Amino acid sequence: MLSGMIDRVEQAKALASDVRLLILGWLKDPAAHFSHQVTGDPAEIGVCVTLLTAKLGMSQPTVSRHLEILRRAGFLRVRKIGRWSFFARDEAALSDYKDWLRDTL
Amino acid sequence: MLSGMIDRVEQAKALASDVRLLILGWLKDPAAHFSHQVTGDPAEIGVCVTLLTAKLGMSQPTVSRHLEILRRAGFLRVRKIGRWSFFARDEAALSDYKDWLRDTL
Repeated sequence: MLSGMIDRVEQAKALASDVRLLILGWLKDPAAHFSHQVTGDPAEIGVCVTLLTAKLGMSQPTVSRHLEILRRAGFLRVRKIGRWSFFARDEAALSDYKDWLRDTL
Repeated sequence: MLSGMIDRVEQAKALASDVRLLILGWLKDPAAHFSHQVTGDPAEIGVCVTLLTAKLGMSQPTVSRHLEILRRAGFLRVRKIGRWSFFARDEAALSDYKDWLRDTL
C-alpha cells in the first residue's frame, strides 16, 4: 500500500469473510448486541474483544486476527483502556469504500 | 453456498485483486479498450480471452483463472463462439452487490 493511498484490494479482502461481515453487522448496533458490557457504553467506546470472542464462540487469537484485518482495512478503530481493546466501526471509512465501489465498479 | 443464495464472501473475494478490478474497469467500456477485436463488436458479444491476455501481458492460464473467479462471483458472463470465449460484465449482478453493500454494511 502506497503512502496516503487507500488499499481497495485489502478492503475487499476484509469483507470476504462471514465472520467479519457478522462482526461489522453487530457493531452497527453495539448497544443491542453487547448491552451487558460493564466498562462504559459500547456505543461510545466500542466493544471489548472478550465480548466479541464470547459471542462468536471462537478462540481469542482467531477473533483478534479477524479484528486486525478489519482494522488494517480501516473499517474498525481500536481504543485501548488498560489491558483491554475496544473496537468500533469507522463509519467514514465504510462509507468511503461504498462510495468508491459505486463510482468505480 | 446454499442453492439460490448469492455468496457475498465469494463476491468480495472476486474484488480483492488489482488484476480483476482492472478487467472489470476495461469491460465497462470494451469498445474503447478492445476496438481491434475482429470477431464482432466487443460491446455486443464481450471481449475475447486472447485480447484480455495480450493487454494484461500475463499467461493465459493466469488470466483464465481471474476470469473464472469473476464469473463464479456472477460479475462476468461468458459466451463461447467456436473455440473462443468472450467475456462481458453482468451489470445486474454488479449493481446487486453494490446495493447489498450499501444497505447491509
